[in-house]
Amino acid sequence: PFQVQKKNIRTAALIVCTFTYLIIGACVFDALEDAPFTDRKHRLERKFAQFKHDHNMTNETFRQLSDLIMNKTIVRHKWKFYDSFYFSTVVLALIGYGHRQLITSRGKIFCIFYAMLGIPMWLITFQSTGERLNSLLSYVLARLKRSLHMKQTKITDGELLITESLLSIVILVIGAFVFSKYEPWSFFESFYYGFITLTTIGFGDYVVLLNNHRDKDFIYHAEYFFFCMAFIFLGLTVLASSMNLLVIRIVAFYSQERLLEKLRQEE
Amino acid sequence: PFQVQKKNIRTAALIVCTFTYLIIGACVFDALEDAPFTDRKHRLERKFAQFKHDHNMTNETFRQLSDLIMNKTIVRHKWKFYDSFYFSTVVLALIGYGHRQLITSRGKIFCIFYAMLGIPMWLITFQSTGERLNSLLSYVLARLKRSLHMKQTKITDGELLITESLLSIVILVIGAFVFSKYEPWSFFESFYYGFITLTTIGFGDYVVLLNNHRDKDFIYHAEYFFFCMAFIFLGLTVLASSMNLLVIRIVAFYSQERLLEKLRQEE
Ligand SMILES: [K+]
Ligand SMILES: [K+]
Repeated sequence: PFQVQKKNIRTAALIVCTFTYLIIGACVFDALEDAPFTDRKHRLERKFAQFKHDHNMTNETFRQLSDLIMNKTIVRHKWKFYDSFYFSTVVLALIGYGHRQLITSRGKIFCIFYAMLGIPMWLITFQSTGERLNSLLSYVLARLKRSLHMKQTKITDGELLITESLLSIVILVIGAFVFSKYEPWSFFESFYYGFITLTTIGFGDYVVLLNNHRDKDFIYHAEYFFFCMAFIFLGLTVLASSMNLLVIRIVAFYSQERLLEKLRQEE
Repeated sequence: PFQVQKKNIRTAALIVCTFTYLIIGACVFDALEDAPFTDRKHRLERKFAQFKHDHNMTNETFRQLSDLIMNKTIVRHKWKFYDSFYFSTVVLALIGYGHRQLITSRGKIFCIFYAMLGIPMWLITFQSTGERLNSLLSYVLARLKRSLHMKQTKITDGELLITESLLSIVILVIGAFVFSKYEPWSFFESFYYGFITLTTIGFGDYVVLLNNHRDKDFIYHAEYFFFCMAFIFLGLTVLASSMNLLVIRIVAFYSQERLLEKLRQEE
């Protein structure tokens, strides 16, 4: 009962922290995005009024046209096989840009079952790959230390975590560099895209492989397609190895606690 | 080395499975969404041609108007505080509908740091809450079994997992029922929304709390706002408890393996 109480209090404290953090975030987003938004809205409304006047449209026809255009941008171009592969990856990785929508009911039903089976598989695969990457990195770092004639050649979890954080930053920066070449984005916007993708938030305001030139010659851009896929897979693998280390730590912490509990009960 | 080999082979097998699964998904999505898409595109193109003709627009002015309208729908209404809270939740839960965009650079920079600190906190909170829910459910199920005079009153992990799966389905169905009342969606679309949200894919093709009536009287809809938030928090907690059970199982499996490895080395 003492342990249960303690765990309840810890959980409650965590929940309070998270809610406070959510409210702080809400305040800041509110403050940062409010004024520029109002400006932008007024400018847009003036332009719309101008358009309606120039082309002799009623409000009703304008609304109809807006609805049509919204639909059009959603179904921008034909699904090709590599689009579908990209889509499957975006579903299983839980990124979900929403850059294309499933318009049929059978597509949606398939998507539900596909995700129900695929997501656990994806998580186990990345958990396993992450664990392998940790072994590989430990081996490489130990060799490096030995070649530098350091006394302590054993690799701690902390050192692994730092290496993986650095690796994530390298991947993000390389990604930002390449994306800013191929997409009409600045370096910062490309970095933002990479960050939002690898955290699997996937807002969908910036999505690679969507520009219009693309349809013309896929062969020319094939290497870019593979780069984008590699960015997602490698980036998520590095994050999975960090998660693997952290999860092992959390579970070790809990099992230590459980052991203490057992000892206390035996007393 | 034998164990390392075995782990490498297992990881390779998992990777092959996942890629095969991605390709299968790509094939099915390709097949399901291609024909309806082509139909829809042709219909849209005819309507656009009609519009351009009726309102005397050149292709260039039409393209300008499309761009403007795309912008407008993205910044549909003013950010209010509860919008920002909703946005923060969508970021930290890794759902990322993209139903509103950060248009300022400082907004984006804040978002990166907010997520870097907040996501680990969110994961630890849900891991902890999930573990508590597991304890609570074990207790409730054990009492239930005792009151039914069953011989075996101990609760296995399997029974907990089944209970949580049932609970998830109940949450999804209740959610689908309420969403189909408040949003212009069918029951199936509402269910699809709930599934895509709780898996944290968050495509953003269906997003709650976005309809236009909403601006008028928030007080009237406040209970709906809280319902939507409760749906996300409760749903993710139930999933977190399932994940908690599965993670403990995976780690137990790995630590058993490590133990075997040690014993083999000692022989
Ligand atoms: K997501
Ligand atoms: K998303």
